[in-house]
Amino acid sequence: MKNFKIALAQFSPHIGNIENNTQKMIEQANQAKQQHADIILFPELSMIGYPAEDLFLRPSLKKRTEAALAELSKVKDILMVFGFVHHTEDGQRFNSAAVMKDGEILGIYNKQNLPNYSVFDEKRYFAVGQQHLIFEYLGHKFGVLICEDIWSLDTVQQLSQLNVDSVLVLNSSPYEVGKPQHRLTTMAKVAKELNLNLIYSNQVGGQDDLIFDGSSFAINRNGDIVLRAASFKEELYYVDFDTEQAAYTKQTLAPELDTMAEIYQSLVMATRDYVQRSGFPGVILGLSGGIDSALTLAIAVDALGADKVQAVMMPYTYTSQISVEDAAEQAKALGITFGIAEIHPIVNSFMQTLYPFFGDRPADATEENLQARARGTLLMGLSNKFGNLVLSTGNKSELAVGYCTLYGDMVGGFAVLKDVYKTIVFELAKYRNSISETPVIPERVITRPPSAELRPDQKDQDSLPAYDVLDAILYAYIEEDSSQADIIARGFDQATVEKVIQLVDRNEYKRRQGAIGPRISSRAFSRERRYPIVNGWKAGI
Amino acid sequence: MKNFKIALAQFSPHIGNIENNTQKMIEQANQAKQQHADIILFPELSMIGYPAEDLFLRPSLKKRTEAALAELSKVKDILMVFGFVHHTEDGQRFNSAAVMKDGEILGIYNKQNLPNYSVFDEKRYFAVGQQHLIFEYLGHKFGVLICEDIWSLDTVQQLSQLNVDSVLVLNSSPYEVGKPQHRLTTMAKVAKELNLNLIYSNQVGGQDDLIFDGSSFAINRNGDIVLRAASFKEELYYVDFDTEQAAYTKQTLAPELDTMAEIYQSLVMATRDYVQRSGFPGVILGLSGGIDSALTLAIAVDALGADKVQAVMMPYTYTSQISVEDAAEQAKALGITFGIAEIHPIVNSFMQTLYPFFGDRPADATEENLQARARGTLLMGLSNKFGNLVLSTGNKSELAVGYCTLYGDMVGGFAVLKDVYKTIVFELAKYRNSISETPVIPERVITRPPSAELRPDQKDQDSLPAYDVLDAILYAYIEEDSSQADIIARGFDQATVEKVIQLVDRNEYKRRQGAIGPRISSRAFSRERRYPIVNGWKAGI
Repeated sequence: MKNFKIALAQFSPHIGNIENNTQKMIEQANQAKQQHADIILFPELSMIGYPAEDLFLRPSLKKRTEAALAELSKVKDILMVFGFVHHTEDGQRFNSAAVMKDGEILGIYNKQNLPNYSVFDEKRYFAVGQQHLIFEYLGHKFGVLICEDIWSLDTVQQLSQLNVDSVLVLNSSPYEVGKPQHRLTTMAKVAKELNLNLIYSNQVGGQDDLIFDGSSFAINRNGDIVLRAASFKEELYYVDFDTEQAAYTKQTLAPELDTMAEIYQSLVMATRDYVQRSGFPGVILGLSGGIDSALTLAIAVDALGADKVQAVMMPYTYTSQISVEDAAEQAKALGITFGIAEIHPIVNSFMQTLYPFFGDRPADATEENLQARARGTLLMGLSNKFGNLVLSTGNKSELAVGYCTLYGDMVGGFAVLKDVYKTIVFELAKYRNSISETPVIPERVITRPPSAELRPDQKDQDSLPAYDVLDAILYAYIEEDSSQADIIARGFDQATVEKVIQLVDRNEYKRRQGAIGPRISSRAFSRERRYPIVNGWKAGI
Repeated sequence: MKNFKIALAQFSPHIGNIENNTQKMIEQANQAKQQHADIILFPELSMIGYPAEDLFLRPSLKKRTEAALAELSKVKDILMVFGFVHHTEDGQRFNSAAVMKDGEILGIYNKQNLPNYSVFDEKRYFAVGQQHLIFEYLGHKFGVLICEDIWSLDTVQQLSQLNVDSVLVLNSSPYEVGKPQHRLTTMAKVAKELNLNLIYSNQVGGQDDLIFDGSSFAINRNGDIVLRAASFKEELYYVDFDTEQAAYTKQTLAPELDTMAEIYQSLVMATRDYVQRSGFPGVILGLSGGIDSALTLAIAVDALGADKVQAVMMPYTYTSQISVEDAAEQAKALGITFGIAEIHPIVNSFMQTLYPFFGDRPADATEENLQARARGTLLMGLSNKFGNLVLSTGNKSELAVGYCTLYGDMVGGFAVLKDVYKTIVFELAKYRNSISETPVIPERVITRPPSAELRPDQKDQDSLPAYDVLDAILYAYIEEDSSQADIIARGFDQATVEKVIQLVDRNEYKRRQGAIGPRISSRAFSRERRYPIVNGWKAGI
């Protein structure tokens, strides 16, 4: 046995772009070689990126993969372990890891545990692997596992019984609040109990609604954490195995993030990756003087830089003076492009056209929606003309109960706060102000009572319960799948609970047409909460 | 052995509404009893309806199911075979069939083959059944299978080796063009080869984007079809077993539908079920004088009746006189509520507001989109005020290449033609005119060259290849998963193919925010084509 060095590639693939990803893997392998690494470990499916969804099914994937393998085989003098889609001769398709050295594939491991719950659909795409892969290298015995495998006690136990020293784990494990710490704590226990060194490399980057946090790590078989990588950054990390200690030696431990820092950074990365990988020159958003758009703006600026961000304030009769002031103040503080566009003439022209149809029907939400849709159309006009992506500014609480206008404030390609409850929006705003010398979100935006300003003296709390109550009910119903009866039994007001749940159920159609946005919870309104629109469930029963 | 009668319930459940579905099952069982049926066979998961998606995962489903089983147990003197979600004591969840008589459950069958491809996600919800269910009744030996099971030769062979006489098959098999006939032909072969009588009951009705056609049937073990139920209708059917012939006796054979009749009826049913089950009093749509809105209108009227349908023509500078004439003519012929709303003042007010931002940038698609969005907002205003659902009128060809405006002509809750290629739109319009004495779609609407009328003298074919070429390329790329190289190799112009594929790939973001619409193809833009929005695949490679 000799000393050796492993590079952990906390890799950010461009989903589907096999050619570029492969080139980047080659560059990173060469870089690791220069640092005298003996092995480089990439994340799960690093070649195509995770999740490539139905691209996994395209017949031409096999040919593309073969071409990429040919490219990778040119890398010499470093052992590479990377993820790829493995098409076998009998027509099966696996989520696999290849062990390659000097152009030779020394072994292929097919993932044995395919998650098919939550955001995962792996049984749609892959056949189940049936056996372990073990290889000896540099006098050390390695096993290979892929993501879900390491969470299956059976699977890991089998490896441990094969006297493996170190397990190389390829991962594309999506982020949710607290997940980086949860992984680490759980895996330290697994390492210790099963007496295995764990080298865990995780994908990083935003992909549509999914965030991959990276947060890769290495843990010695005694449970000691020897490497903790930063979250939300693409980077190469290294761990050294020392034969005398028969263990990996301590490396950098990135500081643990507290919850708001973690969420904030996750949203910044998700926004940056979505905008840049979609090829937009910048973003535009409507600034209302309220906290949601203020926070979205701060995130956009942190993600892209002030020069890439444009905001428009679109006041109407019910917009208060302080809203205009606060919006302008924030825009100035951040140094972004800012404009004001009055919407009176537009709303009036809609009213004029619609009145003959409306007859003497009283005013209702229809008129409020016209304001929101006038704004949405203006934003889209600016987006179409200049090419900037519209960021949608709604939060999870609003979207849950439908307190938002389809084709109005819901326009946009990316909804930054889509999975952030309103109570957390406030926390994030305070957090963001706490990390810079001068606040980037005017204090008054945080402290004034929230209002959509769509009718005189309107407050959100005229239509909705207080946000701490609303969010608690929503969390119980959405994240915890609690029934109406259970939530009422916890002490919430019956009528309030009934109303909130009815709103959630009824507004599935709105959410289905909303922009995607980054998932930070364990039950985002995205691919992991699949509810029918026509739905006779009746929560009350 | 004695003669007996089986009722096939071609049942249309309200998804999630276990209480109502159960009551309806009881009513149908009692009705079948009055017709002296000995057995009634319901479709797959008849109690909750298919697919209930993540409602399958709600913890309170178990309690609801138990209550429904208690209700069903009150039915006497008829053997019921119905579908339900079976929660076992060890915490597993199965897609199951119960055999119940006089309040006693005689047997439970757990589905063995769980589809997890195309529109199906059954492995997300259910555990795999491990054994067959066979029961003797009236001196006859029955087996039970559920939907996908009957397509697995292994599974059916095992049953046949157990000397079963008749297989009762519970189904929720979604429609696609030609599927009713395909099922029948395939199953007649299976019946004959494996020497089994097949009694096949299929769910009917529209559920969000899925259409269930019914088209239930019974086939004797010699391959003779003894019952062919109508498609797209909820109804009870009966077959009689005659001991002397040792076979089921011939019953009604519903006439086979030709392709356009089949598609047309499927869209009518899907529209009716979506509107009625969502509780809308009626629908509204924008009538442009073009063929897509004309066909959508005809379908809406056939689905709901003229008194439930409202249309608005929203002309602008580029709207031709014949468009206005044709729209008015069709509205009059169908007897619907019709209005005209000029959009000049609205578009002008948008332009006035935007010009200062645009500076001297030349006019482009931005200005065209303003027209579409003015119309979309007007439709939504009328919808909000009167409660009618907006029907979106775009077709599959447009949606594929993004030849449509997000938040403009794409507004609406249900996109009737979402899965209908433009070339089929023409066929359907002709078909609809052929079945009534006077045409319901003005002839000129069908014969004039298609135009979005968003700029002077615009024709669709200025921006797109001829629709027969476009649709052929789209079909190859979408339905057949052909690569760009393969499509070019078939003789299509290279530049055209490249452009079309690029447009399809780029416009995933638009489709993701579009309304749902009924699936009639084998690859609809819905839950069965899951593509990432950020996507570096590059079809050209």
